Amino acid sequence: MKNFMDEGFLLSTPTAQRLFDACKDEPIFDWHCHLSPKEIYENQTPDDIAALWLGGDHYKWRGMRGCGVSEDYITGNRSPYEKFKAWATCLPAFIGNPLYHWTHLELQRYFDIRTPLSENTADEIWHEANEKIAAGGFTPRELIGRSNVVCVCTTDDPADALSYHEKIAGDKSFGVRVLPAFRPDKALAVAAADFPKWLKKLEAACDKEIPTFAALKEALLSRIDFFEKMGCRATDHAFAPIPYRRMNDTQLEAVFAKARTGKPVSAEEAEGYQTELFRFLAKEYHKRGWAMEIHIGPMRNNNTKMFRRLGPDAGFDSIADDAVAYKLSRLLDSLDEEDSLPKTVLFCLNPKDNYALGSMLGNFQSDEAASKIQFGSGWWFNDNIDGMRAQMAALANLGVLAKFVGMVTDSRSFLSYPRHEYFRRILCDYIGGLVENGEYPADFPTLEHIVNDIAFGNAKKYFGI
Amino acid sequence: MKNFMDEGFLLSTPTAQRLFDACKDEPIFDWHCHLSPKEIYENQTPDDIAALWLGGDHYKWRGMRGCGVSEDYITGNRSPYEKFKAWATCLPAFIGNPLYHWTHLELQRYFDIRTPLSENTADEIWHEANEKIAAGGFTPRELIGRSNVVCVCTTDDPADALSYHEKIAGDKSFGVRVLPAFRPDKALAVAAADFPKWLKKLEAACDKEIPTFAALKEALLSRIDFFEKMGCRATDHAFAPIPYRRMNDTQLEAVFAKARTGKPVSAEEAEGYQTELFRFLAKEYHKRGWAMEIHIGPMRNNNTKMFRRLGPDAGFDSIADDAVAYKLSRLLDSLDEEDSLPKTVLFCLNPKDNYALGSMLGNFQSDEAASKIQFGSGWWFNDNIDGMRAQMAALANLGVLAKFVGMVTDSRSFLSYPRHEYFRRILCDYIGGLVENGEYPADFPTLEHIVNDIAFGNAKKYFGI
Amino acid sequence: MKNFMDEGFLLSTPTAQRLFDACKDEPIFDWHCHLSPKEIYENQTPDDIAALWLGGDHYKWRGMRGCGVSEDYITGNRSPYEKFKAWATCLPAFIGNPLYHWTHLELQRYFDIRTPLSENTADEIWHEANEKIAAGGFTPRELIGRSNVVCVCTTDDPADALSYHEKIAGDKSFGVRVLPAFRPDKALAVAAADFPKWLKKLEAACDKEIPTFAALKEALLSRIDFFEKMGCRATDHAFAPIPYRRMNDTQLEAVFAKARTGKPVSAEEAEGYQTELFRFLAKEYHKRGWAMEIHIGPMRNNNTKMFRRLGPDAGFDSIADDAVAYKLSRLLDSLDEEDSLPKTVLFCLNPKDNYALGSMLGNFQSDEAASKIQFGSGWWFNDNIDGMRAQMAALANLGVLAKFVGMVTDSRSFLSYPRHEYFRRILCDYIGGLVENGEYPADFPTLEHIVNDIAFGNAKKYFGI
Repeated sequence: MKNFMDEGFLLSTPTAQRLFDACKDEPIFDWHCHLSPKEIYENQTPDDIAALWLGGDHYKWRGMRGCGVSEDYITGNRSPYEKFKAWATCLPAFIGNPLYHWTHLELQRYFDIRTPLSENTADEIWHEANEKIAAGGFTPRELIGRSNVVCVCTTDDPADALSYHEKIAGDKSFGVRVLPAFRPDKALAVAAADFPKWLKKLEAACDKEIPTFAALKEALLSRIDFFEKMGCRATDHAFAPIPYRRMNDTQLEAVFAKARTGKPVSAEEAEGYQTELFRFLAKEYHKRGWAMEIHIGPMRNNNTKMFRRLGPDAGFDSIADDAVAYKLSRLLDSLDEEDSLPKTVLFCLNPKDNYALGSMLGNFQSDEAASKIQFGSGWWFNDNIDGMRAQMAALANLGVLAKFVGMVTDSRSFLSYPRHEYFRRILCDYIGGLVENGEYPADFPTLEHIVNDIAFGNAKKYFGI
Repeated sequence: MKNFMDEGFLLSTPTAQRLFDACKDEPIFDWHCHLSPKEIYENQTPDDIAALWLGGDHYKWRGMRGCGVSEDYITGNRSPYEKFKAWATCLPAFIGNPLYHWTHLELQRYFDIRTPLSENTADEIWHEANEKIAAGGFTPRELIGRSNVVCVCTTDDPADALSYHEKIAGDKSFGVRVLPAFRPDKALAVAAADFPKWLKKLEAACDKEIPTFAALKEALLSRIDFFEKMGCRATDHAFAPIPYRRMNDTQLEAVFAKARTGKPVSAEEAEGYQTELFRFLAKEYHKRGWAMEIHIGPMRNNNTKMFRRLGPDAGFDSIADDAVAYKLSRLLDSLDEEDSLPKTVLFCLNPKDNYALGSMLGNFQSDEAASKIQFGSGWWFNDNIDGMRAQMAALANLGVLAKFVGMVTDSRSFLSYPRHEYFRRILCDYIGGLVENGEYPADFPTLEHIVNDIAFGNAKKYFGI
Repeated sequence: MKNFMDEGFLLSTPTAQRLFDACKDEPIFDWHCHLSPKEIYENQTPDDIAALWLGGDHYKWRGMRGCGVSEDYITGNRSPYEKFKAWATCLPAFIGNPLYHWTHLELQRYFDIRTPLSENTADEIWHEANEKIAAGGFTPRELIGRSNVVCVCTTDDPADALSYHEKIAGDKSFGVRVLPAFRPDKALAVAAADFPKWLKKLEAACDKEIPTFAALKEALLSRIDFFEKMGCRATDHAFAPIPYRRMNDTQLEAVFAKARTGKPVSAEEAEGYQTELFRFLAKEYHKRGWAMEIHIGPMRNNNTKMFRRLGPDAGFDSIADDAVAYKLSRLLDSLDEEDSLPKTVLFCLNPKDNYALGSMLGNFQSDEAASKIQFGSGWWFNDNIDGMRAQMAALANLGVLAKFVGMVTDSRSFLSYPRHEYFRRILCDYIGGLVENGEYPADFPTLEHIVNDIAFGNAKKYFGI
């Protein structure tokens, strides 16, 4: 029996261990996350471990609800200590869940605490962790620095002024690059109730009116230029389902005119608008060499009652299961045919789509980049051992694993960098297993090159940082 | 090499063995099956092992057809011995199939026969088994008793008088509780040819006319009250596809008026009717604390020729592959929004849906119960090692494995209780593997608590028996 | 650690090794491939290993594109040596990809070269392989002969004169049977732009006009009779999505009249036409005892730009993800109900469909053949260790693994026969694992029978060669 989460964690063979030793100290390039640039700039010491862990982490909230914990102890008025205690009491039930591993990786790496957390050890760990926080080393910048991160791409709305990015870039005391990434979801959400409100924000950001679809494109173009100036290398879209319905300019102006004034937009109109605006944006990304991330498959805000109470991103999302292959193929091909398809990373939320998406890559590769079309790492509900391994195996079978741009945290928490370690362990165990099983030569220079590239080098080159 | 199906069967590590030793003697609560209360009451000794095994088990029939056996030997006029011999001759071909394991678990546990069954051993086993049956211990109640079962929930139509449940409850010589479960599939099957006929049965059961949809709801409510009085704790629905189409009372009355008189009902009308009747029923279940099982994904009666000959449940069903996530989310949310969502167990037939359904749970958990929304164990075509393990892993990754209500037989056979042993072995091997692999501490008091809860304790508490 | 791809390759237990030893010398019956009868007849020695490997293998082309190689080195004007070098340079990146194994199996088995191919070893292997090619043994017939093949079924259009099949059959110096298989995809592709052109070819082949749908059926019937005379035992259809829309003769004649003159045919019209023509053909197959292969799930020619440049089958296909179960069930049932369903092999491209299709088999089995409805081996994007193993496990769980008709190459290359060895290793490892794990008795006569049957005997009997 292996010891619980020791240095050999998830490394089941000597080759796996050797490969992990080779790549474990590679830097981290976190090219997709939801960290707050404001928090990075302001760099406050957190009050306690409850603030660090339970303040905004909807994965943990969701887990606690699954244990039958009252909302009082989750997002309600209970004290930080009571919330922490409730979390600790739930934890042993998460056997086989990544929350169990993330929690203990974070305790080990940032607090040097190796005791498993449970109701029984909650008080001891509460005190020890809080003492260490008070003693220093737990501000956002310190946590990022301690994690060997060289670059972070946040996720930003086109209407965002990026003022905190500017301030961080201006502060020469912080050596880590914090770049914006362009996420125009709200520009595409033409049927959303708050589209007109968002449009006002964009008008303010551009300091001019946006009366037409043509003007919207111009406004977004000016924001793209601004993001480019601020160091942007990546852009992000989320789709469920995938849109593909072609429209001409006259139709698009008509849809925009409705949406701008808050009139209802049909599903077909929204799909046409999304298709064409996405195509416009993608061409601009291509011109600038930006990589385009597409997150496929979330079904959001399923719980109306809790949405009214807590808003989005509170742990009430799940996985859609629509067909994705045909429209995605048409959408990407419509760009490729015009030599305008950017580098693209396809993230898959429903594992049933692993093979449809993993085989999609090969339709649109070219010599613009090694694996120009990428299959994103196991994401969100797949950010666990089984999900990451399934993504790696699908990519290996269908594409080129050695050219994979690897892990992202996709996180709101400054403590989540050990997920890169988790990923590297799983990667090295997968590759090590192939070698131990005689499926690949024990050629260590090549193997170490591969794991280092996936850990860091491929992403550095692909995004061009 | 391990011995064939000995005491270490499916337990690949010492931790797995230790956990199985801890939970193997937990009682069985079979909260979903298709056993006949009439047969339990009448308690006849079966004629021979052919009657026990081949009389009604469409899993075996289907397997024999896959071997090219003539229907004569399956549901036809051949003698019990000839049918048994045909089954025995097929058996070695079922390598990797759960039928192979179920057959030998049943031979071992009920007959103390450890010889593998094949054409060569058929005669010897035919005689030995039939002698043991004749010597006693093989009536329904004896088999249930020998299996350490404390409670059985059968599956019953709202129009059923539950007279055998009453008789069983009145017979104090039998210590096992046999409770009805409410399965109103026929009430929902508004477009079925025999809907008017079923309605007559319900009218007879209620002793009043049901001229309107409002009257139907009243009638079903009276049956729910009767089932409640008879100890009902669970209810059962099967959907493929999931309905979600809202209708008002006027529309519903119009649909019902058509259906009652045998006029055709469109797919849209049926969907609206099903949505609203299901919602009505679910609210009543919630008021009573009943757990609602939803079986998602069967595609039934695919073979028209054989359906005409043998009727339903004869081995001609398979797995549907429609999208399920969106409508299921809307259906459950429509209840949750009104604080009326009952405890719900989602059973998944198509493993492609494991992640869509496994992530659905988290949208609607609450403090009404630990894991109020449950992910049902690997069911029907997934009631095998791979399917059960995939369900456990999906639940562990996406939800809270330790709160899982565990196994059901879902069976028509009194010999099928070793499937609980099969499940417990697979469970202990899964959990033992996590511990051996350093993914969870070797904290045996906690681990034993978890496996015992999943084997029995969680279901006892969840259903409230 | 196991040695790289030695005699124990993929055999992780002694039982696996023993079973592989038992079946490795079974002959090969390649009942579905895309080999060229013309090339078999003409029997030319290839120029070099680049011609053998890179001349037409779109799997390798696709892999190279995924590495960012310029099209010049793939289908462009670079020299054979430069293309080979580019391929060799890519190869180490294909860790975990079947291309890595196929390449080395082919080097080992046909060239007796055991050095891993990479940029560093490319020159050495280029020279050694080319010398061996020049020394002889590498013509199509020699490669087929060296591979222990007894029968090959090619894939042929109804309009094909089968003249090379005739010539091969007439050449008594070649002992391997080369049979045509009937693939009427173009007859079914009624909405395709080149349908009228194909119809002309069929008219030429039949030497009469085809003015009506009735005449088309007659024409195809005459071709079926001709294929039967030429030894045809199998037929092949590819569907994505599955058609099922019933039409009467009047409607069919109207659709055909449009299509024949190049007028547009709607999606609904095409579906109706495909349904009824397929049903007509299937009944004729059934009369002749032909086996019908259905390939489900490809989404072809996704890259418009490259399709214009290179045409079909150039590495730009991927996996569709439509629902398949309902229409497939209706289509097969419509034949079964008329006692006209032929032996059918369902090939599955999207692994999400493994359980829907694997459970479909059981709906339509009969005593016409052992496992009359077959689940085809892991195909195309699933022709890898994970995909083949998933297919075997699905079949074992849902059907009757021991009656499985096994592997096909589905290949355009005369070097691809080691894929049968790959398959047999994976099969023996899967079955060996069940035995080692105590899930099946260590009854070697039975086990050896099973693996030999799957390797060769089942297919021989099923197709009736």
